Amino acid sequence: MNTMLAAAKAAKNQIAGLTTQQKNDALLAMADALLSQQEQILAANAQDLEVAKGTVSDVMLDRLLLTPQRIESMAEGIRQVAQLPDPVGRVLEEYTRPDGLLIRKTSVPMGVIAIIYESRPNVTSDAAALALKSGNICVLRGGKEAFRSANAITDALRAGLKQCGITENAVNLVQDTSRASAQALMTANGFIDLLIPRGGAGLINACVRNATVPCIATGTGICHVYVEKTADLDMAISIVKNAKTSRPSVCNAEEVLLVDREIAPKFLPMLRDALVINGKNPVELRLDETAAGIIPGTAAGETDFDTEFLDYILAVKCVEDVHEAVAHIAVHSTGHSEAIVTRSEQAKQIFTTGVDSAAVYVNASTRFTDGGEFGLGCEMGISTQKLHARGPMGLRELTTYKYIVYGNGHIR
Amino acid sequence: MNTMLAAAKAAKNQIAGLTTQQKNDALLAMADALLSQQEQILAANAQDLEVAKGTVSDVMLDRLLLTPQRIESMAEGIRQVAQLPDPVGRVLEEYTRPDGLLIRKTSVPMGVIAIIYESRPNVTSDAAALALKSGNICVLRGGKEAFRSANAITDALRAGLKQCGITENAVNLVQDTSRASAQALMTANGFIDLLIPRGGAGLINACVRNATVPCIATGTGICHVYVEKTADLDMAISIVKNAKTSRPSVCNAEEVLLVDREIAPKFLPMLRDALVINGKNPVELRLDETAAGIIPGTAAGETDFDTEFLDYILAVKCVEDVHEAVAHIAVHSTGHSEAIVTRSEQAKQIFTTGVDSAAVYVNASTRFTDGGEFGLGCEMGISTQKLHARGPMGLRELTTYKYIVYGNGHIR
Repeated sequence: MNTMLAAAKAAKNQIAGLTTQQKNDALLAMADALLSQQEQILAANAQDLEVAKGTVSDVMLDRLLLTPQRIESMAEGIRQVAQLPDPVGRVLEEYTRPDGLLIRKTSVPMGVIAIIYESRPNVTSDAAALALKSGNICVLRGGKEAFRSANAITDALRAGLKQCGITENAVNLVQDTSRASAQALMTANGFIDLLIPRGGAGLINACVRNATVPCIATGTGICHVYVEKTADLDMAISIVKNAKTSRPSVCNAEEVLLVDREIAPKFLPMLRDALVINGKNPVELRLDETAAGIIPGTAAGETDFDTEFLDYILAVKCVEDVHEAVAHIAVHSTGHSEAIVTRSEQAKQIFTTGVDSAAVYVNASTRFTDGGEFGLGCEMGISTQKLHARGPMGLRELTTYKYIVYGNGHIR
Repeated sequence: MNTMLAAAKAAKNQIAGLTTQQKNDALLAMADALLSQQEQILAANAQDLEVAKGTVSDVMLDRLLLTPQRIESMAEGIRQVAQLPDPVGRVLEEYTRPDGLLIRKTSVPMGVIAIIYESRPNVTSDAAALALKSGNICVLRGGKEAFRSANAITDALRAGLKQCGITENAVNLVQDTSRASAQALMTANGFIDLLIPRGGAGLINACVRNATVPCIATGTGICHVYVEKTADLDMAISIVKNAKTSRPSVCNAEEVLLVDREIAPKFLPMLRDALVINGKNPVELRLDETAAGIIPGTAAGETDFDTEFLDYILAVKCVEDVHEAVAHIAVHSTGHSEAIVTRSEQAKQIFTTGVDSAAVYVNASTRFTDGGEFGLGCEMGISTQKLHARGPMGLRELTTYKYIVYGNGHIR
């Protein structure tokens, strides 16, 4: 690990100094190499699947599975990154001070970015492509289930780099998938400039607790949709249904529904019709006392308003007004995405000002919190913290800046 | 402590929602209150000084001392913050997606900012003013030497807030100056949105190692000035003298001089004349072997190129060229400020690209790395990390952003 980290650090200046053209050429070569080494990648993946079978769920097995089509789509993902604007070398500000000192604030790469992730093999190529385009070295540490696949993918990516005369140390895969290797990355001060954990709440929390290197917490989403009393109820049903059921396993899916007490008697039966009775995958409703007095469902337990279900389960609570909604969210949200459905300008104002989350929606589904949907063209994760990056992280969020200051013998 | 943190968190929405006018009025009232409570503040300070006498250095005693003039200058500092532009509510980006979704990226306060600092009483009022102007609550934890002074200052600031009908919980002083209280702040996840340590390397390192809340490392500066072979040597002497001796105790002062070997025989005697023989406070030169062959001085020990002297001491090393200078800095710098003195466009290019520090100077002194000198109007500290803020942190660096997204029933 130490050898890898030292080599990664030593490669910083070469990678930071690449031109946009050089980086794009390398990305295209990396995409080509994925396809030309497809056989090796599929063989490695078959071994991973063989080992995993019986020990993990079918959903997990499907996440792990690679096919020629999926490899093609990974390659296409890299090609798309090549087409995005270069985030490095942007002059963010430039001004001359009264004494003639010229100050230029310029975007520069972070340096070495470590990414700790779980079992989806495509994260390996996605993360490597985003890191290279932003002039960074990446140190990837994937889950043990996908270890052989990740190695085969990394070999291909490095072959692409080599072909373009770029050091293979730009893309590194940690060869140890134990907890110890994750811990070592979290505390590799002086070697890792940024650590991004991508995965479940356990991984994120471990990084927040243990990391001494700069770290961006991503992902955990206990997202709320609040249906205010003036809402168009049909619109509210459509938004709640989309936020809850279009893809329950992702972090921007709704977990909690808040409804104004005044409209609950009308709205909750509509909700039950749409999500339970006529739902393709019926949603289990966990109801607070008021809601349980209106429609049938499970009684909400103590933890139901603090749980990221990632499943066809929705906690439902009745509130007095927008103030109570904002107050509930302040206590129970993870700061990811929250939505209000309303026709009231005042309620919009109170909600968007009062809710302290990365993305706050008015009359739209929380499912839009995504790099692609926000027009960033890609995504390295969704930050739920406030330092540096908030919400979807694209290429620009993988850069920092430095001040380059030009004088003519200036002293103070 | 827990009561204070809960009260601070509860005040977030009120403070975040203040108008610019309300904040400015409060700042002026805080400045007035400092002056009207001057007697109490001076009395408290006299007690602090009495206790500290004999246990700390004279320099430390002077840092601790308050006078009517110093209190006036603290009040003036607050008034200046009132005149700065409001960093909150800026629309950083606004765009409409092809599907009609309107995305507005807006600057918002961080929330609760904790600041751990040492003995200078003026930090109490500076930090409180900057926090309030940026819509943040501050939780201040000062050093024990200045405890009574800090309390008297905080009382005055809170009186100013109260007079304007703003919750006093916007400004909080931790009443426990033990290590335990610092540790509690470092791990107050869910209550502290940002921790800023201001002080010596020991404090900063403790925060980096132990903090589980988002933290910005500030301050430590092993700053280099590199005199390249094409430099105007008179300019180089002027810059080195300014960077080393104008205020050796601050983080942007020079600690290490790098000189191209080719010009060392001419430059080093000039250096000795200016800094040692004719220096008002003669500088102790710690010389590497090559330099020691040219001028008299102390032989540099192993740690001298990794020490923030904060004193009239300068480590001197001869290098072959700009590449060796960049390589030396990569290993020994703390990423604060580095300067090159040169006439060569190529050397400028290599140095400004290759040196990975917050501020990189061409033909200017490192002493300019400062919020005031950079035109930010103020400073909460100088970040030496890459996440979020780098270099001098002004009001904007105390804000984060959120995405406010407007739809019309948009679903994905």
